[in-house]
Amino acid sequence: MSIEESGHFSIEQFFLALVCILVFSKIFGELAERIKQPSVLGELVAGVILGGSVLAIVPSASGMLGYDTFHLLAEVGVAILLFEIGLETDLKDLIKVGFTSIIVAVIGVVLPFALGFGSIVAFEHMGLLGSSDPSLNLLIAITAGATLTATSVGITARVLSDMNKLQSGEAKIILGAAVIDDILGLIILGVVSGLIEASGSGDGGGVSTLGVGIIFVKAFGFLIVAILVGNLISKKLFNIIDIMRVRGVLLLGALSFAFIFAFLASLVGLAPIVGAFAAGLVLANTNQFKSIEHNLKPVSDFFTPIFFIMVGAAVDVSVFNPFVSENIPILLIALILFVVAVIGKFVAGYAVFQKGINKAVVGVGMIPRGEVGLIFAQVGLTYGVFNSQLFSAVTVMVMLTTFIAPPLLQMLFSKGDDIADESA
Amino acid sequence: MSIEESGHFSIEQFFLALVCILVFSKIFGELAERIKQPSVLGELVAGVILGGSVLAIVPSASGMLGYDTFHLLAEVGVAILLFEIGLETDLKDLIKVGFTSIIVAVIGVVLPFALGFGSIVAFEHMGLLGSSDPSLNLLIAITAGATLTATSVGITARVLSDMNKLQSGEAKIILGAAVIDDILGLIILGVVSGLIEASGSGDGGGVSTLGVGIIFVKAFGFLIVAILVGNLISKKLFNIIDIMRVRGVLLLGALSFAFIFAFLASLVGLAPIVGAFAAGLVLANTNQFKSIEHNLKPVSDFFTPIFFIMVGAAVDVSVFNPFVSENIPILLIALILFVVAVIGKFVAGYAVFQKGINKAVVGVGMIPRGEVGLIFAQVGLTYGVFNSQLFSAVTVMVMLTTFIAPPLLQMLFSKGDDIADESA
Repeated sequence: MSIEESGHFSIEQFFLALVCILVFSKIFGELAERIKQPSVLGELVAGVILGGSVLAIVPSASGMLGYDTFHLLAEVGVAILLFEIGLETDLKDLIKVGFTSIIVAVIGVVLPFALGFGSIVAFEHMGLLGSSDPSLNLLIAITAGATLTATSVGITARVLSDMNKLQSGEAKIILGAAVIDDILGLIILGVVSGLIEASGSGDGGGVSTLGVGIIFVKAFGFLIVAILVGNLISKKLFNIIDIMRVRGVLLLGALSFAFIFAFLASLVGLAPIVGAFAAGLVLANTNQFKSIEHNLKPVSDFFTPIFFIMVGAAVDVSVFNPFVSENIPILLIALILFVVAVIGKFVAGYAVFQKGINKAVVGVGMIPRGEVGLIFAQVGLTYGVFNSQLFSAVTVMVMLTTFIAPPLLQMLFSKGDDIADESA
Repeated sequence: MSIEESGHFSIEQFFLALVCILVFSKIFGELAERIKQPSVLGELVAGVILGGSVLAIVPSASGMLGYDTFHLLAEVGVAILLFEIGLETDLKDLIKVGFTSIIVAVIGVVLPFALGFGSIVAFEHMGLLGSSDPSLNLLIAITAGATLTATSVGITARVLSDMNKLQSGEAKIILGAAVIDDILGLIILGVVSGLIEASGSGDGGGVSTLGVGIIFVKAFGFLIVAILVGNLISKKLFNIIDIMRVRGVLLLGALSFAFIFAFLASLVGLAPIVGAFAAGLVLANTNQFKSIEHNLKPVSDFFTPIFFIMVGAAVDVSVFNPFVSENIPILLIALILFVVAVIGKFVAGYAVFQKGINKAVVGVGMIPRGEVGLIFAQVGLTYGVFNSQLFSAVTVMVMLTTFIAPPLLQMLFSKGDDIADESA
């Protein structure tokens, strides 16, 4: 029953894959919790097992039959998760820590980029990587550095939510920084694509300050307008929905609101989850938000595991086999990139100057690169900047950051609680 | 933003289509309720508007970008609906009316087939249809007759559920008859495909009694084994699930159970919804069924409208334009087929010999051909038995039966209630 062999993704395969996703995610989530790890770690491991490089039950790569469907469902899953988290977040709290979030985000972008860029240049000097073309080598180092700047807020948000820590100061700073990080990531992606195009066409005019400015204005403009307009209309809109009698209208109204925001965010180039998160922030002010939250929970329970399974499924385990000699340099590069990726975000956490905030939690919360890092890596591969070796190394780095953050976060939070318990 | 033009179905298009499905289904559902019609009728109309022949926001035909994804989501939607209805149905009640259901199903298959077959033969004699090849003409009449035998239980079940009539005697007979109808439909589909293949290959051995017997044994065997084994293991299984702590485990356990049954039903050739319905019957006996039902509702609210939208979206409105001269014979044939389709199922309802049962409700409940009828029509088209004219006529017949049943059912039930009120 391999997915690639048959002519189309049949309804049987779809139901079977769904069942495997649901069953594996819950069994591995349960196992993770029993050994005092976050359940999301179990879901990621379940994804690896179901993915193309092990059981191949879930289509894990673009081009595989059914991949588009599961990819879209995963996007819905993470959008609903961030919508849920937005619903539990007070916009005022977010604005209060806004400045701190900006600093954390900026340092968490600049430092990993610099460290990643430096490491790649060093590898190129050692002859481990790169070509004879110095301008291509520069491009490789820039693109790889850019990959290290990403933050996947989904992983961290899920851990914070499962641990009931969304109301903590650390959570607000991380969520705010993740939103800013997405905007910065957008600008970096714009610049890198511009540089790649320019190098391809031979002229140097691929990136203009104006272009970068437009990206920035569009992204920030969307967020501000969406939240302002959303706040103006949402109460009235949901009071109208409240009068409607048809079954499920409140839930579907709320989901439509979230999906429209996700759609608009996507249109201006932001991740859909940023829009969904903003929608949640807006609807947190409606009179109906408690019953929206209540009805949303089962839908979120269904969709969010699909996202984490798909992130896990993207892992190609064969790359980790150290007995294949080709894997040694890949793993070496991956390990170095992983170390600088962790250091870069971890140090950013220490830029927090507020009292009573666990700086290590903030730093670790920014570590997972998740699907955002994979998107960057994909750009590098598609445009021929990364060879398959560097692409694999970057992917391994992304995965290691993604898998290490949940247990570290849980450990740090439990430690913080112990200290708090002792002082109480 | 036409779906066919762009290279792939993007995440923006997906979110937009989802929003339109959710918003349109609720607005039109609400409007339908306000004019005292079932909300599902509003959802079907919303589907027509969103479909390929009007706004083209929802991909409505095989081959259109994103169609596979929405088709799979629709299948999940109707499976969840039937699972929900199974949860509310007592297997004992179903067995109690079993004999009545069998009679209703058999008459509801034989009569529409005979009437449809006769009508097509008459059209062929009048020169409105058919070819110079008498054996092909026979095949056309058989295939068209077969299309009239289908029953789409989703439409009726939804109306019954919305009207809180699932516990009525009529509902039990209809649900039982629909399950049997699906098995009969399977056999008919097998026979018709066999005849078509035999006529293509020139030999006469396409259909064997043995082949028909195998289909029958597989389908009935699956149902019996699934329900028996399901009943044996489900209580223990859900008591284990109850001990698990991970979020959403009860809901996802129940959904996995439903999807596994849907998968297995699909494997033996039955509609996935028959499996999902059986799963609901089984889980109705677990200790957790109330909280399964409670958690399932929002998920069902999200998914089921996708199914009804997709049924509506399959309507090609251009065929209804009487000012296009080619449409006149299509509409004429469609109208005759529609009349015999309604009579055939309606009369079957009058085979009910039990007292206190509204026979008209049972008959009308079997009228909608829905997606099942479309599958039959598709087979006729794919194998070249139907020309595009007859295919369109059959599709129109299917749609008319689908759209007329909900308002008729609601009217008949309200009338019954009025009489009951007066006599009280």
